[in-house]
Amino acid sequence: MDIRPKLDPASETPLYRQLASFIQNLVQTGRLTAGDRLPPTRDLAGQLGLNRTTVSAAYEVLESEGLITGQVGRGSFIAGHKPPSSSGMDWVHFFDASAPPPPRIPSVTGSGVISFAASRPSEDLFPLADLRSSAEAVLASPELGSILQLGSPGGYEPLRRYLLDNAREEGVARPGDDILITNGCQQALDLLSRVLIRSGDTVVIEDPVYPGLRNLFEEAGANLIGADPTRLSSSFHGRNVRAVILTPTFQNPTGETLSHDVREAVIETTRRAGAVLIENDIYSQLRYSGQPIPALKKLDPTGDTVILRSFSKIAFPGLRVGWIIGPRPLIARLMDARQLADLHGDQLSQALVLEFARSGRLAAHLAHTLETGRERLRSLLCTLETYMPEGVTFSMPEGGMNVWVNLPGGVDTFDLLQQAHREGVTYIPGRHFAVSRPHHHALRLSFAGLKPEAITAGVARLARAIASELETLDRNQREPVPALV
Amino acid sequence: MDIRPKLDPASETPLYRQLASFIQNLVQTGRLTAGDRLPPTRDLAGQLGLNRTTVSAAYEVLESEGLITGQVGRGSFIAGHKPPSSSGMDWVHFFDASAPPPPRIPSVTGSGVISFAASRPSEDLFPLADLRSSAEAVLASPELGSILQLGSPGGYEPLRRYLLDNAREEGVARPGDDILITNGCQQALDLLSRVLIRSGDTVVIEDPVYPGLRNLFEEAGANLIGADPTRLSSSFHGRNVRAVILTPTFQNPTGETLSHDVREAVIETTRRAGAVLIENDIYSQLRYSGQPIPALKKLDPTGDTVILRSFSKIAFPGLRVGWIIGPRPLIARLMDARQLADLHGDQLSQALVLEFARSGRLAAHLAHTLETGRERLRSLLCTLETYMPEGVTFSMPEGGMNVWVNLPGGVDTFDLLQQAHREGVTYIPGRHFAVSRPHHHALRLSFAGLKPEAITAGVARLARAIASELETLDRNQREPVPALV
Repeated sequence: MDIRPKLDPASETPLYRQLASFIQNLVQTGRLTAGDRLPPTRDLAGQLGLNRTTVSAAYEVLESEGLITGQVGRGSFIAGHKPPSSSGMDWVHFFDASAPPPPRIPSVTGSGVISFAASRPSEDLFPLADLRSSAEAVLASPELGSILQLGSPGGYEPLRRYLLDNAREEGVARPGDDILITNGCQQALDLLSRVLIRSGDTVVIEDPVYPGLRNLFEEAGANLIGADPTRLSSSFHGRNVRAVILTPTFQNPTGETLSHDVREAVIETTRRAGAVLIENDIYSQLRYSGQPIPALKKLDPTGDTVILRSFSKIAFPGLRVGWIIGPRPLIARLMDARQLADLHGDQLSQALVLEFARSGRLAAHLAHTLETGRERLRSLLCTLETYMPEGVTFSMPEGGMNVWVNLPGGVDTFDLLQQAHREGVTYIPGRHFAVSRPHHHALRLSFAGLKPEAITAGVARLARAIASELETLDRNQREPVPALV
Repeated sequence: MDIRPKLDPASETPLYRQLASFIQNLVQTGRLTAGDRLPPTRDLAGQLGLNRTTVSAAYEVLESEGLITGQVGRGSFIAGHKPPSSSGMDWVHFFDASAPPPPRIPSVTGSGVISFAASRPSEDLFPLADLRSSAEAVLASPELGSILQLGSPGGYEPLRRYLLDNAREEGVARPGDDILITNGCQQALDLLSRVLIRSGDTVVIEDPVYPGLRNLFEEAGANLIGADPTRLSSSFHGRNVRAVILTPTFQNPTGETLSHDVREAVIETTRRAGAVLIENDIYSQLRYSGQPIPALKKLDPTGDTVILRSFSKIAFPGLRVGWIIGPRPLIARLMDARQLADLHGDQLSQALVLEFARSGRLAAHLAHTLETGRERLRSLLCTLETYMPEGVTFSMPEGGMNVWVNLPGGVDTFDLLQQAHREGVTYIPGRHFAVSRPHHHALRLSFAGLKPEAITAGVARLARAIASELETLDRNQREPVPALV
């Protein structure tokens, strides 16, 4: 039989669980019965425009519940009856009693679909030969033994020194500052949340914002205020704010950059409130045009700002290396938290990115990345300008990985996804980045991983989907409304 | 002037902060004045039997507070007056208002001191040539690009499959189980704490226990019950226990292993209480003699037990790769938590340990490690038997990295540290592993990183320190007690 579930990628329930529930319902209502064969995961994934792993995960859930049985080489079948559970624990109820899992960002890619969904660097730009040379140097180093030995929570010492020295030269780190290496920016945020936030604390963040940040602080029990950084002081009104977290350059999802004046105002507002200012600075090196604006950390006369950086957006996200620079008493607390979280970071990768940076290979790679990114961003902005229906507006960043698009005429970008998938294009709808406002009419386009041809084709498809959606909405509005009797 | 602080390695205040406070006090009381030069960190570390980084950290604290100034090539000097702080934030008070930092395990090694303090593998046993060969294979692999790209919270898929298949073959993983790769066992514990524990939940752990486990769950607000696993049910009496965490084989710090019967009883007690049973199984592969006893996870008829494993104790702790195997609904929750914690683990290291294991090099290294460990453990037990004063008792493990020693006659192993340092030996005193009972008369000897000669010399030194302490205590007891008037 045909399995045609209505899946909601915006739901807090992950897609695989939605699919599993749908199939379970087909069994309960007798539309699938004992011995019926389910479609192979690859086929069902293709039909539904889902990732194959999503379908596999759904089948695994059903199998673990005894509802279906898998037979190697033959496929999955509806089981005759629910077998007695081998589990003494009722895991589902065990968890329902506690907090719900955090919402997931939907994964809605399929084959042939042009995906603007992932904010990550392009794999085909990875300088593998250079990476191999750096790895050879690390492997040949007399330090290899100590790199493989238990390390320290603060990070691999030579990397710490290198990054801190560079930040000092740049004027970003002060004498009172220290550094902690993290597993990318996400762990930096996690450690800050552990050390700074207690349940009920007020934290001001951008709205829209990267969901990994929002979910983390929500989980920590923070009272999140979604702010417009250009009018930050209005978000502070009468509140006891514990921390402010901003991405002042090429923000995710909007691509926006705060002006020098706004930065000064942000620092002053935060300082007056006695809150901790956290600057997520993982995109600023990806500037394709225009003049750099100094980091908050550099502009802050008190030096109290905490800055987060990472190799993930400028080099290799699979090597989990980021860092935090901030006042020494804070870094000492973060190191304690780090020790409890996972002792310390992977040392081979730390040694490898250090060698990659110190040898000049990172700079060469960055130059190439900037050249490519410039071309891709230009393609995106130019085709948006050309193809988009009237009323569509979008951000015009000078760097980074993301452009934010606002649609007119009441188009809901979540509803639009279905039409977009039919056209063969996908993106992340605005509501996934929502804090206080819904962003139902906005969407994020991540362009860094796509070649110009794909960007052009993708925007054309998206424009067709939007035009068709606008037409439908327009038609519906013109339909006569029956009198209420 | 001479700086002779009385530092307390058992204090919750780290040694470097104690040292910084001591020097601050010397300045405040006028014993050190403006322009006085502090001893070089290396010299002071030598005098005090401290790690040089401890002294550097103390100096850095003082420097950040403006109390001393460092001049490149000349040393550190007491500042003329406290300069106006460049910081707008009063970081010290900022943190005093929140929870205190977790206690630290003291680091009391110095040059010439034989250290039984670190429970980690021996660096000189690392098979560097084999590791290099595995790395070459990974670097040459067509997968390299995707290894360096953003990965998945569950871990590097080929490694997940490899470990899960092995666990299935071994009878440890069931059809309903799934796997999550973690940054070593510490992150596995952290993720479990995030997903399972809410403030006030009761968690049963061993007493004594690895402090990284105790501190983590304490931080999460758990009500910790220190139990004797051989009488586990008595710890459950009338309590609503959420989770039980045990290291049934070669426990840290005791080295003890639970018998088959005790394991059955543990599983039954935990199952009846509806609690989650977490098995920390990071030492069981280090069995030097005797017969292996099946894992709790394997013995558990419900399959609900959650097992934690790691490459850190059997290969390279600097590569942060461990894993959790448990029922699929739990692993799904842990993956959500993992995404918030740090997105996913380092993929290069995951690919590297996979290659190291799959190529047979891990097995060869393990065989060599077992041979060496057997010899080292035998040395330790034999010299303890030979040198220790009467009344000293110790555990007799058949593997792992640790032996637990109990001293007679009211010797406090924390006080004993001073005498031990004079003799040139160090260890971790029992109180650092305390949960409900104090363990003042016990200490942990970690032997895996020491050659047999060092073990013999170290035990002889320790025996002398104990004998001298016993003599002092004995003399004090013989002194006449004055009448109370």
